[in-house]
Amino acid sequence: MESALVVLSGGQDSTTCLYWALKRFGAGRVEAVTFDYGQRHRIELDCAARVAARADVLHTVLPINTFAALGGNALTDTNIVVQDSVDAQTGLPNTFVPGRNLIFLTFAAALAYSRDIHHIVTGVAQTDYSGYPDCRQATLQALEQTLRLGMEYALTLHTPLMFQSKADTVRLARDLGALPALADTHTCYNGIQPPCGECPACMLRAKGFAEASIPDPLVERFHNP
Amino acid sequence: MESALVVLSGGQDSTTCLYWALKRFGAGRVEAVTFDYGQRHRIELDCAARVAARADVLHTVLPINTFAALGGNALTDTNIVVQDSVDAQTGLPNTFVPGRNLIFLTFAAALAYSRDIHHIVTGVAQTDYSGYPDCRQATLQALEQTLRLGMEYALTLHTPLMFQSKADTVRLARDLGALPALADTHTCYNGIQPPCGECPACMLRAKGFAEASIPDPLVERFHNP
Repeated sequence: MESALVVLSGGQDSTTCLYWALKRFGAGRVEAVTFDYGQRHRIELDCAARVAARADVLHTVLPINTFAALGGNALTDTNIVVQDSVDAQTGLPNTFVPGRNLIFLTFAAALAYSRDIHHIVTGVAQTDYSGYPDCRQATLQALEQTLRLGMEYALTLHTPLMFQSKADTVRLARDLGALPALADTHTCYNGIQPPCGECPACMLRAKGFAEASIPDPLVERFHNP
Repeated sequence: MESALVVLSGGQDSTTCLYWALKRFGAGRVEAVTFDYGQRHRIELDCAARVAARADVLHTVLPINTFAALGGNALTDTNIVVQDSVDAQTGLPNTFVPGRNLIFLTFAAALAYSRDIHHIVTGVAQTDYSGYPDCRQATLQALEQTLRLGMEYALTLHTPLMFQSKADTVRLARDLGALPALADTHTCYNGIQPPCGECPACMLRAKGFAEASIPDPLVERFHNP
């Protein structure tokens, strides 16, 4: 029987992927890994832990102190203000951390290798509004090949949300029975709960639930506490 | 004018690569990066700093605390004894850290991105006796493609030693004027200076110098202090 490791950020997409993996690989055959990389919103780590506990999966938190040492981006450097707009030169938001997903998935692969796990599941999506190049299908395919060669290990990267819209992802979460878990997730760029509802991340999340005609369990939690 | 970032471990190969880069890209157009990943022999970091200082290049040391958290290998875990033999199941020595070079090069790429540097030089060699799969040409080619796609950035990975024997590398160092710098490098798996001369790493290094009929400046340094 095969098992899987899910890269769990504590957000909506990776939580949905955790339930996708539980359905695909079976209870007891799924683990989760979360990276503590100095993200400015520590609430993400709490959310990931709650999601993993609710799903009853083994949860490993791995530290990465390198991004903060590299500096220069709004996700880890609190001296930099998160911008809604993209950089004119790169076309990317200033939350872009070059290679972040490549690093996450390579460390996830190293953990999977040590556990004899051959499947990694990640919630990256090419449809993601942010346009991060390390979330695209072509990048993930090249990375899978790199990991297979570099570790000499049969590893498959699963990206069940790659071409899903946010509304598709909400419907998938409903079908997988993941909606209750979404009440524990975090999306807001301002790092607050209840979520601000006004940042790009909150608005994208709200749009997905609205298009799927499903109430957001996270919003419900604060309206009907 | 283009510039380059050299991944400098403090060893013989990466030091030779630093001088290769200085010749290829020119003085003032080369930087070095070293990773402090919890290696059991801190002397490597001192050697890298001395080599960079002697070559008068900007030297960045980036911390990586993740490998130690992953655990289970002899390079970062002092509870594990370095074995000369390879693991019967994997065919790899127990100093193998899955994905180590992939991580190093991806972080190097992130640093290069932030500095507008488009060339990365690494001393990995397919001829390396250790057989690490993340040092092979096919892996490096796949990684280059992954980094280009994942960072949307024109990046070239240079591996001048990929198909060189250790004797070839010694001759290259001589031709590049890098021999004096090799007196500052570290190779010994036992982490001592003067080097033990008996571990696989010391023996491989000695064999290369012997085959090239060139005295090892590191050995000379301790014989003629």
